[in-house]
Amino acid sequence: MNHVIELMKSHRSVRKFSDRQIPRELLLELIRAGQGAATSSHVQAYSVIHVTDPANRETIAELAGGQGYIASCADFLVFCADMKRPTEASERTGANVVRGMTEQLLVASVDTALMAQNVATAAESEGLGICYIGGIRNNPQAISDLLRLPKHVYPVFGMCLGYPAHDPDVKPRLPVEAILKEDYYADDREHVEAYDATMQAYYQTRKGGLKDSTWSQNLAPLFDTKLRPHMREFLVKRGFEMK
Amino acid sequence: MNHVIELMKSHRSVRKFSDRQIPRELLLELIRAGQGAATSSHVQAYSVIHVTDPANRETIAELAGGQGYIASCADFLVFCADMKRPTEASERTGANVVRGMTEQLLVASVDTALMAQNVATAAESEGLGICYIGGIRNNPQAISDLLRLPKHVYPVFGMCLGYPAHDPDVKPRLPVEAILKEDYYADDREHVEAYDATMQAYYQTRKGGLKDSTWSQNLAPLFDTKLRPHMREFLVKRGFEMK
Repeated sequence: MNHVIELMKSHRSVRKFSDRQIPRELLLELIRAGQGAATSSHVQAYSVIHVTDPANRETIAELAGGQGYIASCADFLVFCADMKRPTEASERTGANVVRGMTEQLLVASVDTALMAQNVATAAESEGLGICYIGGIRNNPQAISDLLRLPKHVYPVFGMCLGYPAHDPDVKPRLPVEAILKEDYYADDREHVEAYDATMQAYYQTRKGGLKDSTWSQNLAPLFDTKLRPHMREFLVKRGFEMK
Repeated sequence: MNHVIELMKSHRSVRKFSDRQIPRELLLELIRAGQGAATSSHVQAYSVIHVTDPANRETIAELAGGQGYIASCADFLVFCADMKRPTEASERTGANVVRGMTEQLLVASVDTALMAQNVATAAESEGLGICYIGGIRNNPQAISDLLRLPKHVYPVFGMCLGYPAHDPDVKPRLPVEAILKEDYYADDREHVEAYDATMQAYYQTRKGGLKDSTWSQNLAPLFDTKLRPHMREFLVKRGFEMK
């Protein structure tokens, strides 16, 4: 298979970085590669905050739950869903803009994710390592204040970038037969059971710390509490009312 | 710049396809490349329905607003946010699962988009053309019924894939300076104005039909009506209650 596909299949989160800096021109090219992604109705509903201030990097590392690599990576980006730019542009042409539709939250969040995934792959194609930071949604209001995000903009996730200083294993994924379904949704419990065994074996041999658990078991902390229960109120306050 | 980045910067939606089929093994590799993308807490909250039934393809083409290429492309995929698989797996280990959190809608939608964008880039790296179909959210309940999607699964977008039978122009994107902001969100109106001029010039010379309008003007239909006002009720009914 071609090496673009090989590159994608070899992705793993990198959390330890060398001191080597990323040239400014390369960073711009990564963002341009991101912008090449498809965008719903060409709305391009995203902005990226490049956080260079060391104090702000430390603060975000704490707010995201003590993830020190946010401070130590070469570059840290916050990917924001941005409905401010397109709605205001539309308003300036005389449109009576409706805001706060659930569909707009989806469009902006998906646009942002498509764009970011291009940035991730582009970065890896240049030998960089990356790590998505969903933890910025632990304290999204404080981070929005820190980055001076206006209304109709919300931080979806962060991304650490830098030249890797370690080489973590690639985590096995669910069997492709569980994901790709022919014509109709079909139960995939047997594939999940096989995968649980695969993951349990993986955790007993991987480089980055051993543990004895399955994929299914590991999901419990994600689902047996109200994960990030502040998100609804936060989004409404940002102008994403989910109407 | 390297050719992965060049590939991303040359993306354009393809809507006319040759009769050449995509080998099954390549399709599986594209999905595996998709699965290589980062996923929040390794939850892999997505499923992909490969719609092969010609009658269903025709129906979806109609439901998506008369997009005939859904029926005529080599392969049509529906990318679904899937919280059924991980929550049920977690439940089987004894977890008391909480569902319907807004955060879960975001996690599943973003996971699905990251995965799909890898599929898109992987496909293009093999000489295929693709087109995202957000129009499946025009009639998401009918499409969910057609694909027999269970609760806690919703169709985020479709994707047409095939070997291109035309070569559309690449649409200019917003200036990178509008998207990438240093440390704080900053106004980008001057970049939008420059971009409006760029897009107006583009529309007057592009291959795929000429028109005289700016980016800002083109956004009006997206924002001066309640876009897809059924989405909130639809998602709640699917078990994505946005609590």
